[in-house]
This record gives sequence, C-alpha cells and structure tokens, in this order.
Amino acid sequence: MINELVKKIQKTEAPIVVGLDPMIKFIPDSILQGAYQEYGENLEGVAQAIFTYNQGIVDAIYDLVPAVKPQIAMYEQFGIPGLIAYQKTIAYCKQKGLVIIGDIKRGDIGSTSAAYAVGHLGKVTIGEKEFRGFEEDFSTVNPYLGSDGVRPFMEVCKEEKKGIFVLVKTSNPSSGEFQDQIIGEQTLYELVGRKVAEWGEELMGDSYSYVGAVVGATYPEMGKILREIMPKTYILVPGYGAQGGKGADLVHFFNKDGLGAIVNSSRGIIAAYQQEKYASFGAKNYADASRQAVLDMKADIAEALAKR
Amino acid sequence: MINELVKKIQKTEAPIVVGLDPMIKFIPDSILQGAYQEYGENLEGVAQAIFTYNQGIVDAIYDLVPAVKPQIAMYEQFGIPGLIAYQKTIAYCKQKGLVIIGDIKRGDIGSTSAAYAVGHLGKVTIGEKEFRGFEEDFSTVNPYLGSDGVRPFMEVCKEEKKGIFVLVKTSNPSSGEFQDQIIGEQTLYELVGRKVAEWGEELMGDSYSYVGAVVGATYPEMGKILREIMPKTYILVPGYGAQGGKGADLVHFFNKDGLGAIVNSSRGIIAAYQQEKYASFGAKNYADASRQAVLDMKADIAEALAKR
Repeated sequence: MINELVKKIQKTEAPIVVGLDPMIKFIPDSILQGAYQEYGENLEGVAQAIFTYNQGIVDAIYDLVPAVKPQIAMYEQFGIPGLIAYQKTIAYCKQKGLVIIGDIKRGDIGSTSAAYAVGHLGKVTIGEKEFRGFEEDFSTVNPYLGSDGVRPFMEVCKEEKKGIFVLVKTSNPSSGEFQDQIIGEQTLYELVGRKVAEWGEELMGDSYSYVGAVVGATYPEMGKILREIMPKTYILVPGYGAQGGKGADLVHFFNKDGLGAIVNSSRGIIAAYQQEKYASFGAKNYADASRQAVLDMKADIAEALAKR
Repeated sequence: MINELVKKIQKTEAPIVVGLDPMIKFIPDSILQGAYQEYGENLEGVAQAIFTYNQGIVDAIYDLVPAVKPQIAMYEQFGIPGLIAYQKTIAYCKQKGLVIIGDIKRGDIGSTSAAYAVGHLGKVTIGEKEFRGFEEDFSTVNPYLGSDGVRPFMEVCKEEKKGIFVLVKTSNPSSGEFQDQIIGEQTLYELVGRKVAEWGEELMGDSYSYVGAVVGATYPEMGKILREIMPKTYILVPGYGAQGGKGADLVHFFNKDGLGAIVNSSRGIIAAYQQEKYASFGAKNYADASRQAVLDMKADIAEALAKR
C-alpha cells in the first residue's frame, strides 16, 4: 500500500491528504436539516449529515489528491451511528480510488493491539469465513507501550500489504511535555523516530517502508532532524493550515526526491467555505470551496518545494 | 465517581475489577452455536455470543466486585456489531450496579481528545437535546501527546463527575522501551506519574482524585515508587494472573488505608473454566468458575495485604 500511495502522490503531484474530521458546525444547514427531517434530530440524523457532507467533499476532491484521513474521534463521539458514518465514509472513498489513512491513534499491549490491528487493517475469522471491520489502508498508532504495542500492527501490515504511521512528534502545543524530554544524547521523539526507522527496515516497500511516522508541521526544525533519522520513512504531517503550519515549514519533511512526506489539512479544506478567503462560494457550494482550497494548498507546497 | 468506586471497594472488600475482554476461544461452544443459529456465523453472531457470554459472567460476579473493565479493542475487532456488543455490555453492567471502566486508551490533540471524551464519558448536544455515545464511568487515556490530550478528558470528568486512568507504566514486557528511559534524575514513567499527580490535584474527590493511573502488576518495584509519587491517585493495576502478577506483588500499589489500588484480572476470571484449577466446573458452568476465581483472587489479595 505504501507503493500505491507513493504512485498516487506522483500521479496527482499532490503530497496532500484531506482530513475528513467533520464537526456539526462545519456542515451546511441545508444538509443538516435534510438529515434531521429524514432521520430525526438525533445521533442517526447527525451521522447521516456527516456522511452526506463528506460525500460532497470527496466528489469534489477525489481526482486531486491521493488520500483521505478520517479522524475516528469525530465519528466516535456520536456513538454507534457515528461509527457507521465512519465506515460508510471509508467505503465511499475507496470506491473513488482514494487511499484511506484511518487516524485512530490506537495502541495497547500485545493481544489487544492485535485486536485493533485486525479490526482496522485486517480480518477476523468466524467459522470458515473471513470478515473485516473497518477497512482502512493505513492506521495511526501510539508508541507509548513500546514494540509490544506496535508489532501486532506490523504483522497485520505484512499480511495485508497495508501500513501504519506511528506518532513520533505530534503537532499540538504541549507535545513537548514528554516527547521533547532529553534521554541521554537525544530527545524522546528522536528515540521513537529511531525505533520507527528500525521497525521500518523489516517492512520495506519499493523505496519507502510500510511503517511511517507522524511529525507535526508546527515543528519544522524537529521535522528536519527526524527526516535524517528516518530516511526511508514516509512522514504524515498534520498541523498545516488551521493549526498554523505553512508551506515553507514543510520543505524539511520531504526528501530530495520530492517524496517522503504527505501533508494533512482538515478544517482548512473541509470547512474552507467558512473562511473569509473562500466565503464567496457560499454554504451551498461548500465542496467547490474545498476543491479550491486543495488547489491552493497544492500550489503552496509546490512553490515551497521549488524554492528550496 | 471516584468516591462511589471507593465506597464500592470498601463495601465489597474487593479491590478487584473484572476485565471483560472476550475472545472467541473463551466462549463456550453452546453459546457460540446458539448465537450463530440465530444471527448467522458472522460478525452479528459473534457479537451476540460475546454479549450472552458477558451476561453470564456479570450475573455470577456482580455482587462480589465493584467494577468491570471492558477492553474496547476486543469488541472493535468485530466492527460495528462488536461495538454494539460493547455498548450493550456497558448498559447491562450499569443495570447491575457496577462501575464501568472503559479500557479505550484514547488520546489525541485538543479538539480531537475532546471528541473522545464526550463520546465515552460525556454527551453531545444535537439541536436542543443531549445524547450519549458510550456511557463509561471511567476511561483509560494515553499520555504521549501531553496535557493537551489529557485536559479535554479532565474537563468532561469535572462536568460529569467521572474519572480517567492515565497510562503511566504498562504491564507488557516492552513497556520499558520508552517508559523506563532516564530523563535527568527520573524515568519517563516517573515524570508522567508526577504529571498525573499534578493533574489530579485539580480534580479531587473526597480522598482520592478523579485522575487515576495505570501501573502494571508485573512491575511491583516501580509500583512502589509511583505509589509515593502519586499518593492521592487511584492506581488501576493490570497484569495480575495470566500476565504473571501475583498477590504478593500487589501490596506496594496500595496505601496504608488499604485503598488506592484496584486490580484487574481478565482471562484469569472470565476464562477460568479453561484453567486446570477450575476445569471441574465444565464449559456449561463457566460463570460459576468465574465466580470462584473472583473469590480466590479476593482471598489472595486480602492475604497479601494482611501479611505486609
């Protein structure tokens, strides 16, 4: 799947993943009211509104980008109906040929991590048949529990030719509280990065590993260090746009081949119509605003990469 | 909710939480076949079997213990039907008066952690009504992202009078890979422990905080250190039984008042009938075997505490 992701990035010339992280306040009122009328003003209604809203965005951007990254928390908050919308969103995006990065940040001890891994990337066997829960292509994984927590995901990745992105340096303001602590000659995030590179060696695609890393756009200097520590690791870069990361901050996350990083933007794209810059599209044409935001992001990154 | 948990522990004289972590291989064949016949040999069938199996165990142990800890991964692996079984298990245990510790190990950046927190401990507002996703009393939380990731849970806890257990030192063999690393004068787990104590000060119940910690029974010496660092923190102790922790290992996790810790056992209780010790119960009486295993665990811990 990492090979497929790389090919799609090359084909679209867009190292961009669109974060499908819906919030009620992003959804145009007409969609919300329509869903409420059909399903009621309840969890089912919101879940339907989310799915319809996502469909509009996906229809408008699927030819421009290689991948989408639904953030499961934004669905899980609406209980079972929300998770059904998550599953339907994945199925819809797959149908459109998009690579799915499930932003689930799971991680537990051995047998429990294995359960998450089969649920999100693999399959369970019941009697003589196989079933799949959430059919992501990649999942994000939390490393705090160590190799025990990560290896079960790697095993499923090997079998399924799928991948993971392990949290190394996250984009949030307090990520340094633990991640930046100095251990001997290096920081915790460097130590985790070295471990990611090591795990990655065991699971190589053509030029990049099936084991990727998450490094926030909001920490470009650390991105530079981690790029060197993990040369064959694809880096998923959140924090562009709404969280403050800019195109110029991104250049260090990429390798000289122009590959090695894929940048996420969520609300900057999916709620573009709510920004002054794209307000002229109006709520009705929210998906067109999202398309324009993708084109602008693509140009911003290309310009930054050309300048370096 | 921490006050309620403490009261229940005192009343039952059992600082024990039963881990409801079902695996297909634990479920007696009669339950499995019954569910398959009614719902099909598929995800729905397994989910129904899990719920029926859980019900049997809960009926047999609810008067002996204060709390249960369903591990969401074991349900999530079976997709939406699995998560419905998780939700139904929680509702059933609540009805029986048990405190619910949702072992979800979630954690993300601000707004995303907030979504997990409202989904598992709080409520969402849709129109003028409020809805709840998964109605846990406590959730486990992963600290790797720092305060940003934990505070949204604390805010919901404050509003709902619910609680969290933050991963500090996990029970798995490779937990030391990152958690035991030395930062200045202390280990990472000590640093996280200090942070947990600090967060906990802001959210105190009568004698213990709403912010608890997870520390594995498999590391008793570290438990001793952490007990001192976090005197007002309730410690959730996994790793007893199947993972190798014994009663004698547990004493350091408790305060002198005999409180301060709650010990989890999962397969040691729910699959007791598959152990040689309880084999005479037979698969049909699996729940009675679980009851006996709880009684034995209670005696083991009481003996260890009396001896110290």
